[in-house]
Amino acid sequence: MKHYSIQEINAKLNGVLIGNTTTVITGPEQLEYATNEQITFIGNRKYVKLWETSKACAAIINNDIELEPGNNRALIKVKNADVAMAELLELFIPETPVFEEDIHSTAVIHATIIMGKGCKIGAGCYVGKNVKLGDGVTLYPNTTILDNTTIGNHSTIWSGTVIRERCVVGSYCIIHPNVTIGADGFGFRPSPDGKGLLKIPHIGNVIIGNGVEIGSSTCIDRGKFSATVVGDGCKIDNLVQIGHNSKMGRCCIMAGSSGLAGSVTLGNGVIIGGGACISDHVTLGNGVQVGGCSGVINNAEDGKKLMGYPAVDAREQMKQWVVLRKLARDSK
Amino acid sequence: MKHYSIQEINAKLNGVLIGNTTTVITGPEQLEYATNEQITFIGNRKYVKLWETSKACAAIINNDIELEPGNNRALIKVKNADVAMAELLELFIPETPVFEEDIHSTAVIHATIIMGKGCKIGAGCYVGKNVKLGDGVTLYPNTTILDNTTIGNHSTIWSGTVIRERCVVGSYCIIHPNVTIGADGFGFRPSPDGKGLLKIPHIGNVIIGNGVEIGSSTCIDRGKFSATVVGDGCKIDNLVQIGHNSKMGRCCIMAGSSGLAGSVTLGNGVIIGGGACISDHVTLGNGVQVGGCSGVINNAEDGKKLMGYPAVDAREQMKQWVVLRKLARDSK
Amino acid sequence: MKHYSIQEINAKLNGVLIGNTTTVITGPEQLEYATNEQITFIGNRKYVKLWETSKACAAIINNDIELEPGNNRALIKVKNADVAMAELLELFIPETPVFEEDIHSTAVIHATIIMGKGCKIGAGCYVGKNVKLGDGVTLYPNTTILDNTTIGNHSTIWSGTVIRERCVVGSYCIIHPNVTIGADGFGFRPSPDGKGLLKIPHIGNVIIGNGVEIGSSTCIDRGKFSATVVGDGCKIDNLVQIGHNSKMGRCCIMAGSSGLAGSVTLGNGVIIGGGACISDHVTLGNGVQVGGCSGVINNAEDGKKLMGYPAVDAREQMKQWVVLRKLARDSK
Repeated sequence: MKHYSIQEINAKLNGVLIGNTTTVITGPEQLEYATNEQITFIGNRKYVKLWETSKACAAIINNDIELEPGNNRALIKVKNADVAMAELLELFIPETPVFEEDIHSTAVIHATIIMGKGCKIGAGCYVGKNVKLGDGVTLYPNTTILDNTTIGNHSTIWSGTVIRERCVVGSYCIIHPNVTIGADGFGFRPSPDGKGLLKIPHIGNVIIGNGVEIGSSTCIDRGKFSATVVGDGCKIDNLVQIGHNSKMGRCCIMAGSSGLAGSVTLGNGVIIGGGACISDHVTLGNGVQVGGCSGVINNAEDGKKLMGYPAVDAREQMKQWVVLRKLARDSK
Repeated sequence: MKHYSIQEINAKLNGVLIGNTTTVITGPEQLEYATNEQITFIGNRKYVKLWETSKACAAIINNDIELEPGNNRALIKVKNADVAMAELLELFIPETPVFEEDIHSTAVIHATIIMGKGCKIGAGCYVGKNVKLGDGVTLYPNTTILDNTTIGNHSTIWSGTVIRERCVVGSYCIIHPNVTIGADGFGFRPSPDGKGLLKIPHIGNVIIGNGVEIGSSTCIDRGKFSATVVGDGCKIDNLVQIGHNSKMGRCCIMAGSSGLAGSVTLGNGVIIGGGACISDHVTLGNGVQVGGCSGVINNAEDGKKLMGYPAVDAREQMKQWVVLRKLARDSK
Repeated sequence: MKHYSIQEINAKLNGVLIGNTTTVITGPEQLEYATNEQITFIGNRKYVKLWETSKACAAIINNDIELEPGNNRALIKVKNADVAMAELLELFIPETPVFEEDIHSTAVIHATIIMGKGCKIGAGCYVGKNVKLGDGVTLYPNTTILDNTTIGNHSTIWSGTVIRERCVVGSYCIIHPNVTIGADGFGFRPSPDGKGLLKIPHIGNVIIGNGVEIGSSTCIDRGKFSATVVGDGCKIDNLVQIGHNSKMGRCCIMAGSSGLAGSVTLGNGVIIGGGACISDHVTLGNGVQVGGCSGVINNAEDGKKLMGYPAVDAREQMKQWVVLRKLARDSK
């Protein structure tokens, strides 16, 4: 376990140290749960009263909060304790799971693959024909990468994830467990006899940019033809559905259990709240924000904030909620 | 296949046997689908008329329902036929999948693991460094358990599930297929240049209590620091999202496709309906019930029943729906 | 890569060729992205203006759209360009991932299985006791099929999917990656001491008809007793939840992230929109259509169109939305 003196921590955070502690600090923890070897944080005046009863030997605290450290306890004053905590976490990152061998003997790797330097491939992985792995790619155990797929430098794929054939994943991506990339899109057409549905072949692929993070059990379908695209820097949470031929710009955020139906287009910096759904063929401009649990069925211009189902301008939606609440109360 | 006489079944259920059947009973089935070797149940008077045409040789039936068994057919009268059926199922539990070897030769198990008595580890499993498995732990084929994770006595992990490093699973847990436990939480902060997002390291873990059941493809993220906690006896359905640093009390129920965003706190006995979402940092008291498809954005005190989006008191919500429906009809 | 002359493509589509191109065509692409070796399509007059700047050497175009092909460019006129594109895709279906050996040496296959002709089983698959595979079944790497399950002729199971014991999958099915079929349903009853929940055993199974397609990470639970049933020709998208003892008729469609709670009954040809939830024990008649993001809590007769939460007749729902929007605007 990593451990630091209060001085080492302050050097990282570039704060103002008040008081002192000789305790060696083994990690961060919330005020209520901290042991006396842990550092905590106070980002809001209302938590100040917990400092006295907390066992923590130190706290990161907002500049504008007045507090006495107490005996053998220290405070590090910073501009923003939340941000400082995020920085502090970098000191305490634990070891990632070990690879006894870089390429595990039980991994099945096609003879034709091209692999960069420093790759690690865990037990039970399958890597198909003509797959290209950049430098420093890590595949945790029981990952499946099918034929002709390319994964960029320093990307990490966690266990249980399946990336189907002919897809492209950029560099510095993190793909969490049990993700599916490149399954056929959901496209059918009536059979000529009108009695059933014929599958439309999906011959496209998925192209994922650099610095993308994709949460567990998220599904990104391949294009019918052409690609489903996830732009550089997009962050996608768990259990998200991205339908075939959708195209996401740069640095979009999709929170848990949200979804894009087919052929949705997102500009740059779009934020989709948890559980929200965007209908087929909708286009959302740069910086559009969609509230959690909303259902968007119409296009929206740059910077719009949408809410509700069917989603409208967030202020209009809130007005609708207020009006309806008032009506219900008056109807007693 | 297991089979019992009507007398053996009645001994299990402790009911009152009316009529008799010499048929050997091979299992339970609904009235419409039962063969003459099966037993059915009638928990509601409205199904009585199906008894005559049903092929079932016996039925479990509520005390207060009058019915004649008929020739070579039997009725077992009980207080609650639904509950009796659930008890009856225990007699007919079929064999679980076999393990030809307790520890399959293709499983990859780190030399450092500590394992109790009677564990079974299926083909293609990976068990990492310093993992601890209690007595009677079962890992079905193609399960992945990463370093330093602990799994308690008599817990069962089904195929495709991934439990990442440093997590803790209690005793007598059942984790269904393709679950992900311990992936990084969804936390980012703006990069100093304002042009992108930096990943916040997630150094915490997931702690799951005893007697917990977790449905297929459910995702439980690790804490940013400190733990994401699932209390003893919680029952979580399929495709549920549990965000980083959420904390669930004892015996909470989360139905399918529901979700907790980050840092949600649930008391004991909270019930979340299917598809419902709870926003970041919300606290729900003991026994709170959230209706299906609701979106909760505010705290709620013990025992509250919430519904709608944004969720309000269930009775108020229903009044809103009634008022709106009336308005729409009047507007013709 | 497959490639065709414009004449070969027109022979497939049975259209009217206008103009000509000597370019060998390597695939279809949208107007904006096409290279000069690709064919595009114009199904709507509003895209006509993109033809001039598009690099595509050919386009499939609706009969009723007037357009000049231009130099060394061709148009194929058809009744419906969308349908023709779907047909065209069949010409360009790329190779599926290769199997170096039909049955990979690392697959673990119980000695008792019965297997038809022409099956392919990938690396790391597990196939349990007494499993029956029809002719031409394909299991991609890291698939898990547990004991006594049956899979019909020419069905394809993609990587990461888990099919538990005693389930039945029909012929010509496609099951995408990371699907779970046959996990226990979500059923508990209060423990006699009132302090917790007892698991209800789930001794039923899942029965899937012929020609069914099931999307990534979808979960279909086994019946408590009796079966959870998916009828012939059903098409189920990604991340769908199908609870225990639900029964779907023929050719139903469930879009992404939708769900059926327990014991839901769907007639034939029911269409459930993305993100929609159907409550426990609800019955929807033949041809019922449920709008995206809806929550259905009541039965519906054949042919009904439902929308909203709680879902009502779609026209009534739209009237509610209009009325509420007007009220909110008037309240300024």
